[in-house]
Amino acid sequence: MWSLEEVAKHNSQGSCWVIIKNNVYDVTDFLQEHPGGAKIILKYAGRDATSAYEPIHPPDALAKNLPPSKHLGPLSETAAQSVAREQQTRKKTKDELRVEQALSQRPPLVRILSLADMEEVARKVLSHKAEAYYASGADDQITLTENARAFSRFFFHPRVMRPVGKCDPSTTILGFKSSIPVFVSGAALAKLGHPLGEINIVKGAATTSIIQMVSSNASASPAEIIAAAESSQPLFFQLYKNTNDSVAEKRVREIEKLGYKAIFLTVDAVIPGNRENDAKSPWVVEDLERGSVKLYVEGEGPEDGDNVFGTAGGLVINDDRDMTWEKTIPWLRSLTKLPIVIKGIQCVEDAVLAAQAGVDGILLSNHGGRQLDYSLPPMEVLYQLRKQRPDVFDKLEVYIDGGVRRGTDVLKALCLGATAVGMGRAFLYAQSAYGEAGVVKCIRILEREIITAMRGLGAATVKDLKPEMAS
Amino acid sequence: MWSLEEVAKHNSQGSCWVIIKNNVYDVTDFLQEHPGGAKIILKYAGRDATSAYEPIHPPDALAKNLPPSKHLGPLSETAAQSVAREQQTRKKTKDELRVEQALSQRPPLVRILSLADMEEVARKVLSHKAEAYYASGADDQITLTENARAFSRFFFHPRVMRPVGKCDPSTTILGFKSSIPVFVSGAALAKLGHPLGEINIVKGAATTSIIQMVSSNASASPAEIIAAAESSQPLFFQLYKNTNDSVAEKRVREIEKLGYKAIFLTVDAVIPGNRENDAKSPWVVEDLERGSVKLYVEGEGPEDGDNVFGTAGGLVINDDRDMTWEKTIPWLRSLTKLPIVIKGIQCVEDAVLAAQAGVDGILLSNHGGRQLDYSLPPMEVLYQLRKQRPDVFDKLEVYIDGGVRRGTDVLKALCLGATAVGMGRAFLYAQSAYGEAGVVKCIRILEREIITAMRGLGAATVKDLKPEMAS
Amino acid sequence: MWSLEEVAKHNSQGSCWVIIKNNVYDVTDFLQEHPGGAKIILKYAGRDATSAYEPIHPPDALAKNLPPSKHLGPLSETAAQSVAREQQTRKKTKDELRVEQALSQRPPLVRILSLADMEEVARKVLSHKAEAYYASGADDQITLTENARAFSRFFFHPRVMRPVGKCDPSTTILGFKSSIPVFVSGAALAKLGHPLGEINIVKGAATTSIIQMVSSNASASPAEIIAAAESSQPLFFQLYKNTNDSVAEKRVREIEKLGYKAIFLTVDAVIPGNRENDAKSPWVVEDLERGSVKLYVEGEGPEDGDNVFGTAGGLVINDDRDMTWEKTIPWLRSLTKLPIVIKGIQCVEDAVLAAQAGVDGILLSNHGGRQLDYSLPPMEVLYQLRKQRPDVFDKLEVYIDGGVRRGTDVLKALCLGATAVGMGRAFLYAQSAYGEAGVVKCIRILEREIITAMRGLGAATVKDLKPEMAS
Amino acid sequence: MWSLEEVAKHNSQGSCWVIIKNNVYDVTDFLQEHPGGAKIILKYAGRDATSAYEPIHPPDALAKNLPPSKHLGPLSETAAQSVAREQQTRKKTKDELRVEQALSQRPPLVRILSLADMEEVARKVLSHKAEAYYASGADDQITLTENARAFSRFFFHPRVMRPVGKCDPSTTILGFKSSIPVFVSGAALAKLGHPLGEINIVKGAATTSIIQMVSSNASASPAEIIAAAESSQPLFFQLYKNTNDSVAEKRVREIEKLGYKAIFLTVDAVIPGNRENDAKSPWVVEDLERGSVKLYVEGEGPEDGDNVFGTAGGLVINDDRDMTWEKTIPWLRSLTKLPIVIKGIQCVEDAVLAAQAGVDGILLSNHGGRQLDYSLPPMEVLYQLRKQRPDVFDKLEVYIDGGVRRGTDVLKALCLGATAVGMGRAFLYAQSAYGEAGVVKCIRILEREIITAMRGLGAATVKDLKPEMAS
Repeated sequence: MWSLEEVAKHNSQGSCWVIIKNNVYDVTDFLQEHPGGAKIILKYAGRDATSAYEPIHPPDALAKNLPPSKHLGPLSETAAQSVAREQQTRKKTKDELRVEQALSQRPPLVRILSLADMEEVARKVLSHKAEAYYASGADDQITLTENARAFSRFFFHPRVMRPVGKCDPSTTILGFKSSIPVFVSGAALAKLGHPLGEINIVKGAATTSIIQMVSSNASASPAEIIAAAESSQPLFFQLYKNTNDSVAEKRVREIEKLGYKAIFLTVDAVIPGNRENDAKSPWVVEDLERGSVKLYVEGEGPEDGDNVFGTAGGLVINDDRDMTWEKTIPWLRSLTKLPIVIKGIQCVEDAVLAAQAGVDGILLSNHGGRQLDYSLPPMEVLYQLRKQRPDVFDKLEVYIDGGVRRGTDVLKALCLGATAVGMGRAFLYAQSAYGEAGVVKCIRILEREIITAMRGLGAATVKDLKPEMAS
Repeated sequence: MWSLEEVAKHNSQGSCWVIIKNNVYDVTDFLQEHPGGAKIILKYAGRDATSAYEPIHPPDALAKNLPPSKHLGPLSETAAQSVAREQQTRKKTKDELRVEQALSQRPPLVRILSLADMEEVARKVLSHKAEAYYASGADDQITLTENARAFSRFFFHPRVMRPVGKCDPSTTILGFKSSIPVFVSGAALAKLGHPLGEINIVKGAATTSIIQMVSSNASASPAEIIAAAESSQPLFFQLYKNTNDSVAEKRVREIEKLGYKAIFLTVDAVIPGNRENDAKSPWVVEDLERGSVKLYVEGEGPEDGDNVFGTAGGLVINDDRDMTWEKTIPWLRSLTKLPIVIKGIQCVEDAVLAAQAGVDGILLSNHGGRQLDYSLPPMEVLYQLRKQRPDVFDKLEVYIDGGVRRGTDVLKALCLGATAVGMGRAFLYAQSAYGEAGVVKCIRILEREIITAMRGLGAATVKDLKPEMAS
Repeated sequence: MWSLEEVAKHNSQGSCWVIIKNNVYDVTDFLQEHPGGAKIILKYAGRDATSAYEPIHPPDALAKNLPPSKHLGPLSETAAQSVAREQQTRKKTKDELRVEQALSQRPPLVRILSLADMEEVARKVLSHKAEAYYASGADDQITLTENARAFSRFFFHPRVMRPVGKCDPSTTILGFKSSIPVFVSGAALAKLGHPLGEINIVKGAATTSIIQMVSSNASASPAEIIAAAESSQPLFFQLYKNTNDSVAEKRVREIEKLGYKAIFLTVDAVIPGNRENDAKSPWVVEDLERGSVKLYVEGEGPEDGDNVFGTAGGLVINDDRDMTWEKTIPWLRSLTKLPIVIKGIQCVEDAVLAAQAGVDGILLSNHGGRQLDYSLPPMEVLYQLRKQRPDVFDKLEVYIDGGVRRGTDVLKALCLGATAVGMGRAFLYAQSAYGEAGVVKCIRILEREIITAMRGLGAATVKDLKPEMAS
Repeated sequence: MWSLEEVAKHNSQGSCWVIIKNNVYDVTDFLQEHPGGAKIILKYAGRDATSAYEPIHPPDALAKNLPPSKHLGPLSETAAQSVAREQQTRKKTKDELRVEQALSQRPPLVRILSLADMEEVARKVLSHKAEAYYASGADDQITLTENARAFSRFFFHPRVMRPVGKCDPSTTILGFKSSIPVFVSGAALAKLGHPLGEINIVKGAATTSIIQMVSSNASASPAEIIAAAESSQPLFFQLYKNTNDSVAEKRVREIEKLGYKAIFLTVDAVIPGNRENDAKSPWVVEDLERGSVKLYVEGEGPEDGDNVFGTAGGLVINDDRDMTWEKTIPWLRSLTKLPIVIKGIQCVEDAVLAAQAGVDGILLSNHGGRQLDYSLPPMEVLYQLRKQRPDVFDKLEVYIDGGVRRGTDVLKALCLGATAVGMGRAFLYAQSAYGEAGVVKCIRILEREIITAMRGLGAATVKDLKPEMAS
């Protein structure tokens, strides 16, 4: 039972305690191991860090990373009350006030007609930092932009006089039924946008019968997420392989045991991308009006040339940068019977290697344009794969993600042979704007757009979508 | 002879009466059948609905859809006077006031030099809703834009030293003479733009000797329209086939009997397109200045995810979504001796199927970009058809519509083998801006531009226009 | 000796007299023959018309078109003084005041570094109408724009380590020496921009040793222009063939006798183009600020659908629209020994026909984008000609005009085989801005740019410019 | 020991003395030889010229160009004090005040995340004239722009599952080690941006282990620069060959003796380019606010048609415009054992000739778009060379410069076969903004971007970069 005075004494690199949800932790030894760096912890040394900790860590992060001896126990009741009072009476930052107002002015959900409407609302209700993290791409964001523009280079050749009165947009992914050929692609830190974070998504996916691929970097733990799912609801897991094989093995076994149905091994983000918009964005925006945020805020921003990788820097610090086809796939196969999908294939040659490696699927992805600028858009890679190596589509399932905004985008990918299309940011935005209901709405919009476009194309089922319909 | 008080009692879903042109109708049972939904009728339950009814229904719509027993008879004279007074003294909405002012500020017609000038005037004098209905396209309006841009990708290779002193732009369409190779393509709800609606167009077409294709969804009835035509004036009919074959048969026989000269079977709009601009536009714009119309207006707009198809939603609700080449064409052929044209061909393969089905013509059209976004522009389909299957042009007449703005656009299509070019919105705009005189002016402008460009190309007749002149 | 009162009585269609430079003319019978229409004359019926007449007619126009009996003789001295006084005290229009101010604020000529600088100044000092006439192109001005953009699609492959210390940009055109491979292409109505008009150009061309092609529609007569030339200065003549062969023959014989050295038969402008910007521009701009000129000015602009061809309408009204290769070239050859060049070839096929017809040169031109919009840019036609029929360059000289702005543009055309490049508007602008000195400056700028670019390309003479240097 | 009064008497073309750093020089006879023209010197006749002289001349320029007899000796102490006082009390121009303020408002260097950030700061702290000189390109700056845009036409095909934990971006250039495949390309007049000029660059290059190519037109002398280098630091020399062979020979021998390691013979700038932005910029900007600088400033700017080559005009006035492969390369080879690189190859044919001439390397360069507008961008030339003549890469080293902004640009060039990439303006900007520290930062940013992109591409060393990775 600690008093605030006692905790406050440990406010330095030599002895650093922090309070998280009214419990006191000694993180002195952990400072150097913290993926996000020591500095961000030291900012809260000797005091309450809950509001900074929660949106970017799953609740079990402390338990996993800190030995029990460093769990120093709860605050005294007086201290806890004092923390709560301080939290309540704390003067809100301008950004917090702006977000509060934006939330109160959201249009009713029924007025949201497209994913663009949804994104518009979301970008208004997100904190400055959350928006920068969600929206940013690598370097000059060329790939981020081209991922979407790639779809606009394909036009339809619709067929008429075909019966489309009944139109069924459902499909299966790795044998699991999905109401539309769309799945949730792994996207981290959903709690930055909404207190319930990934839970909003898993519930919305349940309601609409689509499949969620859960990120290793989710702000809720894999266990929490699957606990929120319906019993029959399939979930996939996006694995960032730890550089330590035994840590990685433990993760894989945990995931399979929890009931996840497939593993998407992420190979397109072994290092952080150069996301300048994220790196430039301060965590606290004070004295600055939205829209006129200055580039440089006193006391914020990167402080040396090596620490410019923004939020992503911390997330991938322990990822294995030395995976190989020869070593990593057999290793993973030996650990699990789950289907294995390689997430992050970016050229035809690697798609062929993946087929040779015997994996169950590949997700053509450049990590949403967040890693290497000028990586070819997935839709272009899909087009080249269809043209150069159509045989690959017979050996494994092919998915793409990145840049999908409309039902027509989904259908273009399916025409060229994709089994389904992943979307990440769209769901982060939807849950940020309206929580679980936003996720459901997002899928309903896609479903309506997909059915409308299938009928316009003369396709009654996804099997009717053919390469000659889009070019 | 009803009093307003009596009518006013029937103001609910349980008993719903409305007044149209001083007659009282019991629409209680009809509420669920109304193509536009019950809600829009209930807004006028127990009171006068004339001003909402007239611009979007042909006058015989009530007679056709309501059994005689529901025609309850006229208002009393006192009641009729009261309705008239109320109409006169009713406070005009801001949008109505804006339209009135725009009408009074129209430039004299002689100053209209191009269709762009005409559209500019029209878009100012249209109500907010009418403009949204006329102008909107599917999704992001890419196809709407590309329909026009497709023409701009073709350049001319003009021939010189050819006699063009005499230049004759006339042609025949399905054997009927037309002063220029342009016809009016079916476009619905002309009364939204002008009280006389389609009658303006039929009279303007008579004056200038071009042919009008009348829409199934015209706001005047086929009988009214042909009654307004000159005796020798050919009219075509754009058929939206009802899903009920006997209803459809009745329509075809009626049309033939009325004297229409050809049937354009519409296959590119069996479902409503996703026209968000239309769906977002409220019917009543109050307290809002033009140009600053907010996205969401209290009490207007779609109220659930399924009712987002705007004005078009109601128009196509009974259309046959299961037409086939094998079934529908022989059925139609068995009913009528009129020439049959398929409106809405969007790829080479279907053009070939149409030729095999033995129809008399095809209209390459994506419904003005209003149905499936990213459908290839008709001018591009025409180009591919000319290149891949020139034989099709020998088997039937080929027309295109969508995106035509200038005489040069018309000539580009004719160079590639089109017999004539349809235009829809241009005539809606012309009659909205200046009534019948606007329609005539629109055709005179086209005629002048066509003759000027034919002479510039070295073509004295439409037969002199060749594929090598445009690429 | 007429009084103003007497003249003023003849102010109607029935009897129409006008005063030009203090002489009285009876134009009653001429009204219907006036190429520009009766209306514009009637505006000045019974009064002085000098200021409207001068900038758009050569001085001998009246003598040529009006029989001597209609030359009624001079004004009385009192009347002449009164006209002069009125002219001096007349309230200037806002446009005239604007032009006066712009003239006084011109930068010193030494500060003009490029043709773009020159055009910028010129467009400020031109009257609203003159600018509209000079600058306008057909329809949407796509070809006007593309003429220039076509050059920007070619890049250089410069050669290094070649001696360019001495660099000679001179060439010969039809055997006549030119200091740079640029000539003045026929451009009408130079007096709209400067009181001396074409005389500025002929004198500037003399100073700099380049060749001027004089337009049939020049605002100075062919005799006046050649009289202003130096004795050894070669001049070409741009012939608009009159539809009346004997009138045309008279013109050809006059031209040859005057000493013109070649005839450029114009075949790309037998009818007026649809230059809307010109047609929309009023002759008098009053009560309107530059930049906010309204589309429609009371009492100005076209008054019926047939009179919308702007300034050009009057210029080409008598042109022969039925010329043919078989008839017209032999006819012209029979009349003159001068070299014959066809101005206005716009495709490869016609270039071949011209070579077969045995003419001495062709000028690839679409009349500066003023006739048929979407006519292929001359630079593109040149490229196609070089690629498809390189043999044509051995049979005649090939020139292009349209869209040239820089020395690099000139060199691109020469690399592909052009002998020289014509420029029209550039010289109209230069003389409008600075008179003869502007013309000289314009050529000096081009000369400097051409030499700089030749050296950059590794070419010491125009013969060193090769097709492989530009693509 | 001169008084100011005495010096002031010599203020005309007849007798022209100037004061430089408190020494008096008689430049009367030199006026006509001055590469920058007499006029700029005469502006300072009879008075102190130090501030105008220093940023654009190496300190030994006077010694080299003026015979000892014209070195008239020092000012008297009184006079020197007076000059100093005048300099201190001199009213600063608006541009100087603007620069002072911009310098004081520079963000801390740690906040500079990209070269674009660096350029943004630099362009604010540069004088108007310096910015115009550094930034300007030829004519309409198309090549300047396209040099950068050329990179954006290439996309990556990244490889995954390759070990990139260890990633080494170092390489060798002509056998000399470089920490990254980037070198400083010759760029003149660094003192225009910072008092230490080229010294900033040589020191920054030492710290980061990259190689500087020193310009003949550096504002510090070759001796000064190499004196500031570390002992083992390799420096290359960019030779502008004097038209006088013996002057040129003296220069080559001096350079070799000073210890420079290679000679980059410049062949793309034997004449000044037409840099209008530079030519238009006055040296003194007074009474004008930044951003609203008028085109023409009283008393500044070019005064006749021949003197419009801006700053570059003076720099290349003595360059040899008649170099040839046959003459110049053997001559140079005979003088020195240093490796010879041809700087300024712009097409495949000349790359082949260079290989045949036996030089050690070629730098594909169009002089940063400053010479011939529409010269093909180096990245495009590299692409063509790779495609048409891959054998050339085996015979010599190939470098490119122009348009490089990002690590990804560098890697695209290396994928296509370049050994290294030169950058010029980036280092001028970096040292202008932050001196030596800016240069170091600039290289650190590039290093980080290169490593990040190599890992994203699946390349652990520069040898792993292959043509199939970029297209």
